[in-house]
Amino acid sequence: MSAPVESPAESTFLRACRGEPVPHTPVWFMRQAGRSLPEYRAVREGVGMLESCRRPDLVTEITLQPVRRHGVDAAIFFSDIVVPLLATGIDLDIVPGVGPVVAEPIRTAADVDRLRPLDPSDVSYVTEAVGNLVRELGPTPLIGFAGAPFTLASYLVEGGPSRNHLRTKALMLSEPSTWHALCARLAAITTEFLRVQVRAGASAIQLFDSWAGALSEADYRRYVLPHSTAVLAALAETGVPKIHFGVGTGELLGAMDDAGADVVGVDWRVPLDVAAGRVGPRTALQGNLDPAVLFAGDAVLEQEVARVLREGKAAAGHVFNLGHGVLPETDPDVLTRVVELVHAGSAR
Amino acid sequence: MSAPVESPAESTFLRACRGEPVPHTPVWFMRQAGRSLPEYRAVREGVGMLESCRRPDLVTEITLQPVRRHGVDAAIFFSDIVVPLLATGIDLDIVPGVGPVVAEPIRTAADVDRLRPLDPSDVSYVTEAVGNLVRELGPTPLIGFAGAPFTLASYLVEGGPSRNHLRTKALMLSEPSTWHALCARLAAITTEFLRVQVRAGASAIQLFDSWAGALSEADYRRYVLPHSTAVLAALAETGVPKIHFGVGTGELLGAMDDAGADVVGVDWRVPLDVAAGRVGPRTALQGNLDPAVLFAGDAVLEQEVARVLREGKAAAGHVFNLGHGVLPETDPDVLTRVVELVHAGSAR
Repeated sequence: MSAPVESPAESTFLRACRGEPVPHTPVWFMRQAGRSLPEYRAVREGVGMLESCRRPDLVTEITLQPVRRHGVDAAIFFSDIVVPLLATGIDLDIVPGVGPVVAEPIRTAADVDRLRPLDPSDVSYVTEAVGNLVRELGPTPLIGFAGAPFTLASYLVEGGPSRNHLRTKALMLSEPSTWHALCARLAAITTEFLRVQVRAGASAIQLFDSWAGALSEADYRRYVLPHSTAVLAALAETGVPKIHFGVGTGELLGAMDDAGADVVGVDWRVPLDVAAGRVGPRTALQGNLDPAVLFAGDAVLEQEVARVLREGKAAAGHVFNLGHGVLPETDPDVLTRVVELVHAGSAR
Repeated sequence: MSAPVESPAESTFLRACRGEPVPHTPVWFMRQAGRSLPEYRAVREGVGMLESCRRPDLVTEITLQPVRRHGVDAAIFFSDIVVPLLATGIDLDIVPGVGPVVAEPIRTAADVDRLRPLDPSDVSYVTEAVGNLVRELGPTPLIGFAGAPFTLASYLVEGGPSRNHLRTKALMLSEPSTWHALCARLAAITTEFLRVQVRAGASAIQLFDSWAGALSEADYRRYVLPHSTAVLAALAETGVPKIHFGVGTGELLGAMDDAGADVVGVDWRVPLDVAAGRVGPRTALQGNLDPAVLFAGDAVLEQEVARVLREGKAAAGHVFNLGHGVLPETDPDVLTRVVELVHAGSAR
């Protein structure tokens, strides 16, 4: 196929993010580093989630595992969206089977005042892990990772995961000044967390707004977009491509692009050729294979990978990915098969 | 305002469903009969969910409670989407805090063969309750209720509620003939369950495809639309308006209309004036107030009700509703306030 690249900057992944010609469509998987891999479960044995995110040796190993195993075109930094919150002193834990649980939810202006900025020294383990990874990965790019202000705010306001985001929306709608103060502080924390990763060598970043899809476009534009825009604008100074993703965001693709994305992530509900019409003409797209297709056998998998590649041609650039994270029950061999199918099916 | 109507057929609700002029926009709430009401919790004390659905006295009382309290323009028959499955002999229970749990999930062609049709005599308690209700309600219309084939299939295949519908999608994609056989049987059961309600006097029906929003439009059209179409076509013979709703279905509104809906339900993610452009010119719309707005105080509530009414004018007919079911934490007085705001804000 193509001559080997010697640096992340020339990699197919970064070229696709920038909308440049590529020898084949690059592929990585959201949550590729994690529970679907037996080698992940082995190194995590007896180690809590948040502890694992703060041990540079483990972060390095877990981030590298899917690159070694699947031959994906990019690594995603292993972390959790609550890590920067924890690093600023918020008392929270990740409870197995539940998710992040916050000891004292944030619901008033006085609560918001408790939030302090993130200092790079709070996350020296991130700097160390990224440094290790960049050395180990060589020409394979590393994607930095952070949760967007709305999703972080929802955890803090609800006190944990939520289906309806009821208290979050109520605060947002009824006390907009408190809401905006909260999100401004979270935007600053997120920005610094991403800057730390880029300074240490990450080649791109992904801003995950996992739950933005719970909002109407009008509410998203009024209450969320300014804060995600602040994060992405600050990161623009670093020059790395910025991916912006949330699940169930068909109605928000244009707005999430407007926030300053170079690449917009698309779940499986909107075909990429349709999504291309909802973002700007220079915005690349990432996605959109349904994670459930990985359970439907090889014939369906081949068809669906071919469809996504075909529809992805409508975008300014296409990074192949799932429409959401890898499900824990996924057979890792099927992920490897997807990488092969994407590379073979898109070779130019 | 308007002269009192003497039969459901002349009611504002049925007029709006048919796209006829109305003296004011009619309003009802999905899950209006249920956990938000203290009088509901009182009559349910010590009575299991499925038992309550099979006791005509309780069904009648629970269905009437929100009509008495809020002055809504329609009653929704109190039931659960698994009731017709239970009535055909499927071993299932509703576990508090979990939802419906199916003892033996359906995952093979042999399992599908176990499903038998619904006979009206299996649900004589429904016939009795609807008869009681029609007498008690007088000119207020009663909406019949059933789950759509896809949502029922997901419960049966997964064995209970599911976030990712993984086994359901895997079956659908990898064994389409088993899938279609399953959905054809479920469509027949759903059709009969709705027919029983209409024969006993229900003035309209709502087909709930709670989880259709988990599918892409292509998969919806291929694997689900034929079966929901079969249900709605069979009901068309009865002449009652047919409402078709699922949450997170922005991409599917056109397809759900194509299934044969007279009214398409819209959640809060798609404004009604936008939704009007996604359905046929004669299709009425129902929705789309975010249930979270009921927690944001009266000023926000007034603004949002006014916005929904304004945007709803773009539709062939508008039935005011929430974009999803009433949340259990909702203050019933706020629901009553919404009814007042809708009636006052739309009086012609």
